[in-house]
Formats: sequence, C-alpha cells, structure tokens
Amino acid sequence: MTIRVGVIGAGNIGTAHAHNLATAVPGSTVTAIYDVDQPAATALASELGCRSTASLADLINADDVDAVVIASPDGLHAEQALACLAVRKPTLCEKPLAPTIEAAQRVLDAEVAIGERLLTLGFMRRFDPGYVALKREIGAEGIGTPLMVHNVHRNAAFAYGLTTEGTVTNAAIHEIDINRWLLEDEYARVQVIMGRSGPDTPDGQRDPLFIIYETAGGVVVDIEAFMMARYGYEVTCQVVASDGVSDMGDGGYITRTTARVRGQPVPEQWIGRFRDAYRIEMQAWIDSIRGRAGPTGASLWDGFAATHAAEAAVESLRSDGWVRVDLPSRPDLYR
Amino acid sequence: MTIRVGVIGAGNIGTAHAHNLATAVPGSTVTAIYDVDQPAATALASELGCRSTASLADLINADDVDAVVIASPDGLHAEQALACLAVRKPTLCEKPLAPTIEAAQRVLDAEVAIGERLLTLGFMRRFDPGYVALKREIGAEGIGTPLMVHNVHRNAAFAYGLTTEGTVTNAAIHEIDINRWLLEDEYARVQVIMGRSGPDTPDGQRDPLFIIYETAGGVVVDIEAFMMARYGYEVTCQVVASDGVSDMGDGGYITRTTARVRGQPVPEQWIGRFRDAYRIEMQAWIDSIRGRAGPTGASLWDGFAATHAAEAAVESLRSDGWVRVDLPSRPDLYR
Amino acid sequence: MTIRVGVIGAGNIGTAHAHNLATAVPGSTVTAIYDVDQPAATALASELGCRSTASLADLINADDVDAVVIASPDGLHAEQALACLAVRKPTLCEKPLAPTIEAAQRVLDAEVAIGERLLTLGFMRRFDPGYVALKREIGAEGIGTPLMVHNVHRNAAFAYGLTTEGTVTNAAIHEIDINRWLLEDEYARVQVIMGRSGPDTPDGQRDPLFIIYETAGGVVVDIEAFMMARYGYEVTCQVVASDGVSDMGDGGYITRTTARVRGQPVPEQWIGRFRDAYRIEMQAWIDSIRGRAGPTGASLWDGFAATHAAEAAVESLRSDGWVRVDLPSRPDLYR
Amino acid sequence: MTIRVGVIGAGNIGTAHAHNLATAVPGSTVTAIYDVDQPAATALASELGCRSTASLADLINADDVDAVVIASPDGLHAEQALACLAVRKPTLCEKPLAPTIEAAQRVLDAEVAIGERLLTLGFMRRFDPGYVALKREIGAEGIGTPLMVHNVHRNAAFAYGLTTEGTVTNAAIHEIDINRWLLEDEYARVQVIMGRSGPDTPDGQRDPLFIIYETAGGVVVDIEAFMMARYGYEVTCQVVASDGVSDMGDGGYITRTTARVRGQPVPEQWIGRFRDAYRIEMQAWIDSIRGRAGPTGASLWDGFAATHAAEAAVESLRSDGWVRVDLPSRPDLYR
Repeated sequence: MTIRVGVIGAGNIGTAHAHNLATAVPGSTVTAIYDVDQPAATALASELGCRSTASLADLINADDVDAVVIASPDGLHAEQALACLAVRKPTLCEKPLAPTIEAAQRVLDAEVAIGERLLTLGFMRRFDPGYVALKREIGAEGIGTPLMVHNVHRNAAFAYGLTTEGTVTNAAIHEIDINRWLLEDEYARVQVIMGRSGPDTPDGQRDPLFIIYETAGGVVVDIEAFMMARYGYEVTCQVVASDGVSDMGDGGYITRTTARVRGQPVPEQWIGRFRDAYRIEMQAWIDSIRGRAGPTGASLWDGFAATHAAEAAVESLRSDGWVRVDLPSRPDLYR
Repeated sequence: MTIRVGVIGAGNIGTAHAHNLATAVPGSTVTAIYDVDQPAATALASELGCRSTASLADLINADDVDAVVIASPDGLHAEQALACLAVRKPTLCEKPLAPTIEAAQRVLDAEVAIGERLLTLGFMRRFDPGYVALKREIGAEGIGTPLMVHNVHRNAAFAYGLTTEGTVTNAAIHEIDINRWLLEDEYARVQVIMGRSGPDTPDGQRDPLFIIYETAGGVVVDIEAFMMARYGYEVTCQVVASDGVSDMGDGGYITRTTARVRGQPVPEQWIGRFRDAYRIEMQAWIDSIRGRAGPTGASLWDGFAATHAAEAAVESLRSDGWVRVDLPSRPDLYR
Repeated sequence: MTIRVGVIGAGNIGTAHAHNLATAVPGSTVTAIYDVDQPAATALASELGCRSTASLADLINADDVDAVVIASPDGLHAEQALACLAVRKPTLCEKPLAPTIEAAQRVLDAEVAIGERLLTLGFMRRFDPGYVALKREIGAEGIGTPLMVHNVHRNAAFAYGLTTEGTVTNAAIHEIDINRWLLEDEYARVQVIMGRSGPDTPDGQRDPLFIIYETAGGVVVDIEAFMMARYGYEVTCQVVASDGVSDMGDGGYITRTTARVRGQPVPEQWIGRFRDAYRIEMQAWIDSIRGRAGPTGASLWDGFAATHAAEAAVESLRSDGWVRVDLPSRPDLYR
Repeated sequence: MTIRVGVIGAGNIGTAHAHNLATAVPGSTVTAIYDVDQPAATALASELGCRSTASLADLINADDVDAVVIASPDGLHAEQALACLAVRKPTLCEKPLAPTIEAAQRVLDAEVAIGERLLTLGFMRRFDPGYVALKREIGAEGIGTPLMVHNVHRNAAFAYGLTTEGTVTNAAIHEIDINRWLLEDEYARVQVIMGRSGPDTPDGQRDPLFIIYETAGGVVVDIEAFMMARYGYEVTCQVVASDGVSDMGDGGYITRTTARVRGQPVPEQWIGRFRDAYRIEMQAWIDSIRGRAGPTGASLWDGFAATHAAEAAVESLRSDGWVRVDLPSRPDLYR
C-alpha cells in the first residue's frame, strides 16, 4: 500500500516535506499540493509530477489524498487541522499547533470527540539522532536522574520577522516540546528574563531571551533563545544529572561526562559508522538504474584499480621496500 | 518504475543491503534472495516477503529480477559478476572486485567487450557524508593542493578471521579506493611496514600494518590498518595540503585548519542540521499510517501542552518573575 | 630585594601558597607560618625551613615578615585583614573578604582611611590563562559586546561541608568576582532558583543552585553551582556576544564561534606552545645544580643518540628505502 | 644558594632562557651574556641588569658564572660544550648536540673521560605537560604496549632558512628525541619519503618530509615534518597501543580511546585545574610588592563588591524572585 499525501503549503518546510515524501520515503507518494500562492503550488506540483488544487477543500477531500501535511503559516494550523479531522484523514501538522491556548483547545476537543489519534505534530527533533541519543543517556544506564537542562537555540538571522513573542511561540516551542519529551515531565511555571538586546534586534523587540521553566518534578530547564545571533545556526542541549552530564553538541554528537572522564562513544562496528553511506549508496544505484541519474558510485575500473593497488601491497608484505603499481591504461569506457 | 532486485548473499552485508532496498530506498523492491546457506536465504526472504531461489542461476536469470546485488564471500565476486554481465543486468558488487589482478582483469574485459557500464563496486564510503565533505575541502576554495593523506582504519576485532593479506585486500581496500577518489590520482608504488604486532594477532600473522602509497602525482598516502585494535571501530582521514589541513574524524565531522584557526563549520540554517530528522519523521509517519508501526511522533496532546507552556512564557514577557503553567489533565486518548 | 612572607593557615590553600612562594616564585621567601593547629604550622614550617609562630600577632608583627598571606577559615578573614592593615603590611587575603557585608564594610573603611591599597583578594581566576584569554575575546577584535554569560561550577564533592549559603559565599563567589572582572560591570539584581536536589545533598540543604544576576549594563549572568556533582571538578564559562560566542572549556581552552566557524586558535610559533616546557626545563636544571634533585632532562647520551638517528635519516634522504641506525653501546655513565 | 648563569647566544632562544632564569626560576640569576653580535649581547645584558663579555672564554671562565647555557647556532654547540666541560661547569646545551655523529662523539668521549654528567641537552619537550601526560598513558594502567606512534610537526614558516637536511637535524630532532624518551627504546632503522613539495618550498629543497623509524623493539614511529605549512604551528603525537590510543593534541591535552570510549580526563579537584593561576597570582603579588609592577589582582573593593553580590544571592535563597544588589559608590582609592 502506498500512502497518497496532499501537502498544504509550498514554502520552505512544505517543499522539504514534499520532496522527502516523493523521493526519500518508501511507501508514500505526493498527489496534490495546495498553497494560497497558486503559482508556487503549481511549480512544486510540476516538479513532483502531481497536481495542485484550486482550494484547500479540494485537497483535503480528494479521493486520491489519503493523508495530509499542513505546512502553512502558524496562524492557520488549528483551522486546517480541524478540517482534516472532519474528514478523518491522518494529518501531520507543523508546529505550533496554535499560537493560543483557546485555538489549541478546540482542536484537542475535536480529536478527543472522534476518539482516535489522527493528528501528529511536526516536532521533528524527536526524530533527530542527536536528541534520540541524548534521551538514551538519561536513567540508570547513563547519567542518572536529571536535575537541570541547559538549552541553546540560536539563528543567524530569524527568517520570519523577529518578534519577542514569536521567539517563544515559533522558535523556543521546539525546546518546550523536546524537554517535555526528554524528561517525560510537565512544566509547572516559567519566567522569561530579557537583558541587553543585540545590535540586530528590531525596534521595540527583545533578543536574546533567557527562558526558565521548572517542571512538576523540580527540574530547572533554561533556554537561551537568540534569534539574531549573526554567526550561524546552533542548537545544543546539556542534561545535568545525578551521576554526570551529557551534552548534545552541534551535529548531534553526545559527550558524556561521568566518573572523571569526558567521553564520546566509539562504535563497535562499521555498520553504525557507515549506516548512512550504505543507504545513500543504494539510493544512488537505484536512481541511476531508473534513469534518474547517470552512472554513479565506483565503476568496474575503480574495482580493477583497487585490486591492482592491493596486490602490489600484498607483494610488499613479502619484500622490504617499495613495489611498483603497474596499472594498465584506462579503457575509454571509463573515461 | 520500481526496480526489482535480487540479492546474492544473506550474511551481514547482504541483509543490510536487502533491508535498505526494501524499506528505505524509494523505487526499489527485493524479489529474490540466494545464498548457499539455503535456510539463511529462506529466513531473509520470508522477513522481506519475497522468495529465495534454489540456485544462483535462478536468481540471475529470473524475469522479475531487474538488477542484482552481489554480497557473497570475496572469492566469488568475480565469477558472479561475470554471470550478471552475461545477462546484461545492472549489478552492485561488494568490494573487492577480486582478490587477484587476473580475476579482476577477466571481469574488466567482459564489461569492455559489452561496451556498457553495468557493474558498480560497493565502495560505499564514496557516499559517506564525511568523505563527501572531505573531498569538498580539497582545492582552491578549501585547503589547496593535497601533499599527504594520513588514514587510520581500526576494528575492535576483525570479523572475518584475520590474515595479513586479508587486511590489505578486504579492509584497507576501502582506503585504497577512497584515496584514489579523493585525490583523483593513481598509485605509482607502495610498501608495507610491519612492526611489533598486537597481543590479539593470530600466530603467523601481523597486525597492525602501516601501508604507504605514493601516487603518480607525488602524494604520500599512508594507512594504519589495525584489525585487532580492541577498543572499538574507528576510521579517520587527514588531508595535508598546501594551505591547510582537513580532518575527517569519527562520525564524519570535518575540522579544517587554515590561517591560524582550527575550526568546524557552523550551518547557516536549521535545514542542514535537522535534515535527517525531517526525513526520519516522515518515514515514521508514513509507516504508522501503513500500519507498520503504532502512533509515533508528537501527539495532538503534545502540541496542546507546548502551546500552554508557550503562552505562559509569553505572559511572563510582560511581568517580572514566575508565571504558572496550568495544564488541564490529560485525556485518556493520550495516555 | 627578597620579600619575606608570613603565611596564616597551614591547610590546603595555605600550604599551596607557601610552596609556591618558597619554590616557584622568584623574589620571595617564606619566613613564618601560623595556624591555630600548632603541629600543622610546625610541620609546614619545618618542610620549608622557616619557623612557626605561637600567635597571630607574633607573625603579623615580626620584623622579618614584610607581607602576609591570609589562608584561614572564611569567618576569620576580615578580622585578620584588619590586623594586617593596622601594621601597614601588604596582604593577600583568600576569598571571600567576609561572609557578611557588615564585616566587609569595616575592612573597606579601614583601608580607605589609610588611603593606600594594601590588601589583595585571592581571586586567583583573574590570573588563570583561560579566563585571561576569555577576557581578550570580548570587544571589537573578538566577539563583540557581551549579552549573556553562562557559567558552570561543579565539584565532585564539596570539601567544606555543603550548606546552601556556603555554595554562594564560598564557591560561587568565584563566578561572582570573575564575571564582574570579565564584564567590567556591576550587578543590579539577582535571584537563585533551586530545583530538584541531587542524591548526595545533605538533609535540609539544596544542590545544585541556579543563580542569575543581571548587571547594571543589562547582561544576564547565570551560574550553575553544583557542589556534589559526583563525576569530577569542572569550571566552564561561555560568553554570548553580539558577533559570536566564546567558550572557555575545561583546561582553559577557548573556542570561538563567529561567522559560520567554530574554531580554536592555532599558534604562529613554537614559543607559545612550549612556553611552560621552557620554564619547567630551566627550573629542573637549576634545581639539579643546587642539589635539590638528581640529574634530570636529556643527557649528553640522549643528544648523541639523537644525532645518530638524525644522521641516518639524512643519509636516507639520498637513498630510497631503509638505512640502519648504528648506535654504539651506551657508556656506563648514562645507565 | 643561587646559581649564577652565563648565557651564550642572545637570539630568540637565548633571550627566552635568560628571561626565564632571571624572572621565573627561583634559585638562579643571570650574570653574563655572550654573543658574537656584541650589541645584541649588550642590549640583553642591560635589560637583565648583568654584564656582557667580550669573548666566549671570558664568560665560560668567569668566577661568577657557576653554570652555562649554550644557545648559539647549531654548528657551534659541540665546540662550546667541550669548552664548558673543560672547566667542569654544568651546562645546558640547546639541541642538537651536533649536526654530525663525529662531532657528537667527541663531546661524548670528553664527558665519559671526566666521568661526571655535566651536560644537559635542551630537549625541552620532556618537560612539556602534554608529553609528560602522554608518557603516563603508556603501560598497564593506560593504553598498554605501544605499537605505532604517529607524529606531526608543522611550522607556519621555517625560521632558519629551510633545507631538507635541516628539517631533520634541527626540527624533527625533537621528535627523534621525544619518541626515544616516550618509548624508552632505541631506533634500529629509518627511511625518509619525499612526495610532492608544497608551494613555499625553496628551489632544490623538499618539504614536507615523511620520516619513518623502526625501533629495536619493533615500534613504527612516523613523523610528518612540514616546515612551510602556512596555516600555523602544530605539534601532535598519537600513540597506538595494544589496548587503546592516546592523542596529545595542540595545547598538550590528552584524549584517550579505550573500550568504546574516546575521552578526556576530568580533574577531581580544583587545585589541578587552577595550579598555574595560583602560581601566577603569587608571582604578580610579589612583583607588585617589589615595585616591579603596579597594584594587580583583585582589590579590597573587588572583595567588598563580591560580598555584596553574594549576600543578595543568599537573601534570594529565602525569597522567590529578584533581589536588588545595592552596592555603595566606589571610593576614589579604587578608581
């Protein structure tokens, strides 16, 4: 069974999701795109070989749309989610669910009334290998019971027009979710500290913010949210626990400090280290057979040259010094 | 068009390739498995919902096999590759092409006679994001012209029964290929230095080896190949060039040293940092809709809780101190 | 002129100071030790070849005491500092000056009345190469104007009997001073957040603390002070500024992130890298001449062996392969 | 007893040694400087408050010269060392002992004839905290028995006029010595591999070199010696052993990889982390008392301000939110 997906929103995130569904996720296909910006919808649809729809309702109700992705502006999420729930289609809705509690409540009530979990929120960090590894650090096998979590979320320049409130509801919302998920705990109270603002902060706004949550379980979660940090994009998370500390640095790597050692795990086998390489290799090979790309990967000539070089090295095992590598000239087929 | 693949070999690598084709690579499906160990082939086929074949020829000649993966023991690669070439099917053959130049030459002659590039060698490191990034480091935009390359290839314990020659032809063959590819240069000569061996080295064998190639262009490529390194698996590569040095460390991260700074790139945007998370999120969502996994990702309740926490933080922007987060109790649907 | 120093306190810090003055600081000598624990004072004095005094007054007033180090318990600092001021002797007083503002005020009034700066506080982090380098990061040549500073101060187990207040007045006092010094700014307000405590926290106490200062200039300074962190000792400081971020990690190394690069400085010359080695080498050589240590450093034989090895390498420059190193047998003098 | 030292050579290294002896090494004083460049000798002597001598003999034979430092050009070391041995004065001679075995042999014979170890070679890396820590890594408590050592020695631009031979005898001589010292083993044979040279290599010379030694015990020691590396100065050393690998990176930090973890040691206590800070603090304090520097370190005002800030934090322990820090205005004495 292939899931036929309709995508609402042809902006950055909508386009990224549509491409992933069409080219990198087995079992799915994209059948329809909707955007209030019709040319954008048409262009993306054409690129993916599907159609664009004239209205939101056309997409949501289409027979060949089994599931929906909502990647529209934040303020539209709740209303569109309600429309998807009304037709009982599984929906992945970008974060946030809604900028206000009132709107979020209406969607929650609707799904509870249906009695089936149809809506998934796009908090994609829960699938990030870095955060997944960080969550495994917590507990008896790792660093013990969490006491504090220090989060950093910096953007080189905030894409959406910086507002102080938007820093919370659009950006720090990621940390709000991921710390709940990491700690499996709910928040009890919060305060935001606003110090001196950086030079790129628009008039009337504040940036960076320092947001501090206390959870019901007593964990202090602090978040530096700095939207105009100039130097680049960076997300880090440090969990301070009863037996040690784990840092998720840029790139998702985990550094664990316990018992006098600050360390990074070394894999036992090559499969872990080159997992992505194996998948990408297969994808490239299949794409080239399907005619979507030219010959790719190592050719027979490359294998032949490697065998030549290896045999010379093997010969050197039995001598003491240099052995020539005599590679014949390359056939035209491999030029 | 979906490419129907037959996989020869149901061992570690064959199983990994078959799983990738079946579950992670759009556009492909696995239709047949062959292994001399028939129960292994049957078990893998059953897991993937395809058939196993009684003979190699049955797999290679099958009408529903468009392309073949060869993941058998090293000594069988050349012969099986010739069989695949004979029926003109695109084939991905695990490295090495052959342990001897003579066998490699026969496969090369066959493909040249056909005049079409049908065989791809499984040098998957060419697709590793680490090596791909390292190759981009070379040249005028990066560290300049390469002068030396220092490679390390260590295994905790060599899986295949360590022999000194096998270290070259089965393990270091990866470095042999990847340095040719990095440098776009051929090897001119080689020597292998064998010092004191480690404590786990089998009688009559030598480990580690220090292999040194000189390329036609004068680059010195050294490879420490240490198959019984005990501590874990590690692959590193350092390119020393005219304007600086780039290191690919474990995990594939690049550290570039030029002009008095040793540095790592910081991304400009979140898309790069969380690319994998977006893909994996979509895969998980589609898999749950297809019924291959239960509900996954953030639920509507998670989105609702995040909105609650964010709204309290927004309220705190206007006060000076703590604001309570009053989350209602969780509906049963989300327990 | 050699400064003759009297040291009050023969505990950990007093002993460390006395040893530094006696053996590592040119221009100083230790002439007297006082401690209420007389045997401790006598033992340290005997080790250093000086005398211990029967009373504090004896030490402070002694003619052969030009300057005083106060390394007694925190509660005695203020009173002893007043005694030293009374005799107008330069004094280095361990931190804190006093646990209460009232006591601190009396010392301040005394020195102001004298009109001469005689007292130095033992905030030794101001001399730590790491913090010194971090301060150089701030400003136009570095990361720009500071906006936030994140500090971490962790002890494996607090030496002095943990109390929540002591965490502030004895431990976090270091961060309190060093951030004033880094920022050249005064504090405007403060709050301490106490979440869940760790498992080694004594009954009735809280640990870790999260201390947040706002400076007059609007910089947010947060300090995680975790006295029973189990895993080890760690002090880090991260300055977040208008153009980038600088981290002082364990060991004092600076990582600066600006303009899409996270980097560490590479020295231009060997002098910087091996500055300590040169000083320690000279100290070891002088100590051996003075008969305080046996022969140390590289012997003439080591120089001879190096010349042998180098000459063989030079010969290899003109050949192509191995050259033997023929070192004669080692004379008995060097065994 | 204070050792009165005469320094031969007023260049970079001679000046550095003279300054260390005069200002950073207790127990020593510099009484005489000699250099063929008389104005250079006079200038350095004047800076240190000692005399320069008209001839080498005047310095070596002077009654107020107890010990000699030889920091002249490489080719003069052997002859000057013989002159110092003749008068039985302890001598620290910069590396190398001599560029040729023949000259080195004469010095060795002279000291053996005397029967007393008077000469120390200036291989200062033996005192570098990085190499000292690396040597502790070797053996049963650390990474086990060494099998290979990978060394890198890079200069931004070679100070002395690059010659291929000089790279060995003047620069790589450091690695030649330090690997003997690390391994406590002698070299058996050597070869030098010269690949493509970098763009700054003078005509007729080769750079970088790849130098490979095998020790009597069978350890392979390779050295990349790259004198015109452009980007900066860097020295690294990686010991590959039976149970793991230890890296000494730039700055001397040790990273040990064993048993699936790549880690760096975390100190148990603050004394280790801030050892240098304590020494430098004391030196600064003594220097200011001696009138060699103005007031330095934290003033009484700094201690007072810290007590104010701490007391406000202590008050905050008992409240829930912000507490003001009311620092009085700063007395003129501390402006």
